[in-house]
Amino acid sequence: MKYCSHCSATVELIIPEGDSLLRYVCTTCKVIHYQNPKMVVGCIPEWEDKILLCRRAIEPRLGWWTLPAGFMENNETLEQAAARETLEEANARVEIGDLYAVYSLPHISQVYILFRARLLDLDFKPGIESLEVKLVSEHEIPWEEMAFRVIHDPLKQYFKERSQGKLGFHMGVIDKPSSSS
Amino acid sequence: MKYCSHCSATVELIIPEGDSLLRYVCTTCKVIHYQNPKMVVGCIPEWEDKILLCRRAIEPRLGWWTLPAGFMENNETLEQAAARETLEEANARVEIGDLYAVYSLPHISQVYILFRARLLDLDFKPGIESLEVKLVSEHEIPWEEMAFRVIHDPLKQYFKERSQGKLGFHMGVIDKPSSSS
Ligand SMILES: [Zn+2]
Ligand SMILES: [Zn+2]
Repeated sequence: MKYCSHCSATVELIIPEGDSLLRYVCTTCKVIHYQNPKMVVGCIPEWEDKILLCRRAIEPRLGWWTLPAGFMENNETLEQAAARETLEEANARVEIGDLYAVYSLPHISQVYILFRARLLDLDFKPGIESLEVKLVSEHEIPWEEMAFRVIHDPLKQYFKERSQGKLGFHMGVIDKPSSSS
Repeated sequence: MKYCSHCSATVELIIPEGDSLLRYVCTTCKVIHYQNPKMVVGCIPEWEDKILLCRRAIEPRLGWWTLPAGFMENNETLEQAAARETLEEANARVEIGDLYAVYSLPHISQVYILFRARLLDLDFKPGIESLEVKLVSEHEIPWEEMAFRVIHDPLKQYFKERSQGKLGFHMGVIDKPSSSS
């Protein structure tokens, strides 16, 4: 950030009076431009013993596999965000179920929020951000080609718990930049 | 938003190619300035059968009661955000416990995330954003003077569940602008 979005003057990075963190503050109109973490919201679409995965058509991790998930938009609920992303990335309709995992990624200022979901029909196909969309059983999951650790880790947990017959809820932290963060 | 924070040119509100929502896009450098919901993170600090409440020293709802909670900052985890807000608003040290409630507030593009927490000592006092901080039993809670519905509703649920001996986890939506949203 270089310029004030309210008045176009330059901003400076200072700690405002009464604050303890560096903020972008306008040198002219004095508005403080706060920056906050973003939510990435998605789901695990379930159909019998299978789940729906998407192969990414966009960077980062073009060609790698992931769950339908994306940045939450203004004026929607978490459940609406998860369902919208699933529709956009996989043209798939889901009924959003229980919250399954919430992961903080402080190094990139994101919070991932994943629901379980019931896939409502099999009429899915790749959206513009996906190369391929498919239903996979546990043994078919391309674990070595998962795009992000924040997708890989909760999914590992999910299948482990499912085999034990009890699906819980998980809080996690992924704080190291890694080859698959 | 009137000006581009990258180049200071004017922005226009348009639907970018391949997108479906209105975005602020720079007329010169073409950067898309996305706007996303913010997280407000806090906790229910517990001490025996009491919880810690703060009376707000700032608008909105100056003089009304709330739980320690505030906007999550970049580069922190949800748990760190909840503990930091409790330290800032009540000078109180807590051990963050289970997630208790997640509420979407789509009309103001916020998501509230509340944990249960164990108050570690009684050496608390008002921070700069609080007029007063006190430990209260259920019958002492000023229900009619709670600052926000998103604090009032989960707390009602909390005491109801506690009296039944089973504390769960709650997803909620508060979608109407109201006198105490
Ligand atoms: Zn300005
Ligand atoms: Zn620009």
